[in-house]
Amino acid sequence: MIHPSKIVDKMFENDAFSKWLGIKRIEDGAGKSVLQITVRKEMLNGFNIVHGGITYSLADSALAFASNGYGRKAVSVETSISHTQACKEGDVLTTHTEEMSLSKKIGIYQITITNQHNKTVALFKGTVYITDKNWEI
Amino acid sequence: MIHPSKIVDKMFENDAFSKWLGIKRIEDGAGKSVLQITVRKEMLNGFNIVHGGITYSLADSALAFASNGYGRKAVSVETSISHTQACKEGDVLTTHTEEMSLSKKIGIYQITITNQHNKTVALFKGTVYITDKNWEI
Amino acid sequence: MIHPSKIVDKMFENDAFSKWLGIKRIEDGAGKSVLQITVRKEMLNGFNIVHGGITYSLADSALAFASNGYGRKAVSVETSISHTQACKEGDVLTTHTEEMSLSKKIGIYQITITNQHNKTVALFKGTVYITDKNWEI
Amino acid sequence: MIHPSKIVDKMFENDAFSKWLGIKRIEDGAGKSVLQITVRKEMLNGFNIVHGGITYSLADSALAFASNGYGRKAVSVETSISHTQACKEGDVLTTHTEEMSLSKKIGIYQITITNQHNKTVALFKGTVYITDKNWEI
Repeated sequence: MIHPSKIVDKMFENDAFSKWLGIKRIEDGAGKSVLQITVRKEMLNGFNIVHGGITYSLADSALAFASNGYGRKAVSVETSISHTQACKEGDVLTTHTEEMSLSKKIGIYQITITNQHNKTVALFKGTVYITDKNWEI
Repeated sequence: MIHPSKIVDKMFENDAFSKWLGIKRIEDGAGKSVLQITVRKEMLNGFNIVHGGITYSLADSALAFASNGYGRKAVSVETSISHTQACKEGDVLTTHTEEMSLSKKIGIYQITITNQHNKTVALFKGTVYITDKNWEI
Repeated sequence: MIHPSKIVDKMFENDAFSKWLGIKRIEDGAGKSVLQITVRKEMLNGFNIVHGGITYSLADSALAFASNGYGRKAVSVETSISHTQACKEGDVLTTHTEEMSLSKKIGIYQITITNQHNKTVALFKGTVYITDKNWEI
Repeated sequence: MIHPSKIVDKMFENDAFSKWLGIKRIEDGAGKSVLQITVRKEMLNGFNIVHGGITYSLADSALAFASNGYGRKAVSVETSISHTQACKEGDVLTTHTEEMSLSKKIGIYQITITNQHNKTVALFKGTVYITDKNWEI
């Protein structure tokens, strides 16, 4: 089996938007992904708090990295997110990925995002379809 | 009643991330918002297709603009999105907002995103809580 | 291709719970299902309105019938529902199924439930995984 | 403050459908509800496994009981469920309620349903709006 980090290396290498987000990969793994960003001014909305799209994007990247880490290509099927706490410029946001269910074809992940005070700022759930195609590196 | 466009003007004025996305407001309204972006290179993920976070962000902005257009401040409670078609650099994405339900406290919106060929690329559903605070401009 | 009604006949034949619900099949089809029930006393919750589980069950049956109507076995992957209007004893509830997206492996359906006054009482979204197994009858 | 069990007593007392389900209340609490049912023949669908509506109904009752346990009337705004494992006649299903977020107006609950082998059979997420009305008993 290819090491999950090799797969995520490849996915991340050309992921321009994850790079724009300033994503740091803290931990890679099969069914696991800990990512971190620091909120910048250009990520804020008109209320001067982080745009919901930023936390979604962070969680969505974690979903892709976690679910592809097993070596088979996985694609997102349905995702949902609740934004439970406002985030400000300078906040450090971290994903925590929990694999809730994994069958041959379907994986379900809960991804919680916390800030630097360990407060939950967003609850994300993602469902992926696991294809028959293997990652080749 | 304040005209919806005035409220959206105010929300959009300082919305740095919506500006980074290059959002063009095609139509404002109470319970309505047609927004448009053109996909840029820096919005792509490692598969060279648009990052799910971009389409989510576009829909999330439309949700905010549509639900605040009535004059009371509304906040997102729960959102979900399915990405049904890959998008590439140069694609022009447009939101179509449908108000599915509106009570005193809760609004439910379905936002469909289509590309320049009028193909649906994402299905978004957003639920907002309508506060007691009025917009003052 | 097997006629959708034949497949739904077979699914419905032994569906004890759909029968308990008193489901009437108004229309069968590939990607389509119009079902109807009348609310009975035993379907009410402690507020004397229909239990959310009843409208969910009705929509979930419609999802199964619609998505299996193409001739391949389909299984529910993720479903969500918002209950937008209370229903009372004697109300007649009808499903309206819209196929939002259909690929080789994934189907997404929006199922709206209305009452006898044509008011929307619930908004349901269901995602199914389409297996490789054909219905054989 | 009224004891949560008193509120749930009152809600449950006239909840005809929860009774039809054969719900046993194992634990009541503010933001907490452990419920249990045993799958009966009439709860099965055409595949001879439990109808998705049954597990949804169980979780939905747990959501209502947990979120009303604080003494203010709470109403469901949006719910979603994934059915991750088939259940058969005789299976004993138990809810586990986790309060993911609680603000003045909005509560978010994750409810996991397990069978008698402690396997997860369904993942439910429910969002409630907390009204200003107190329970009076």
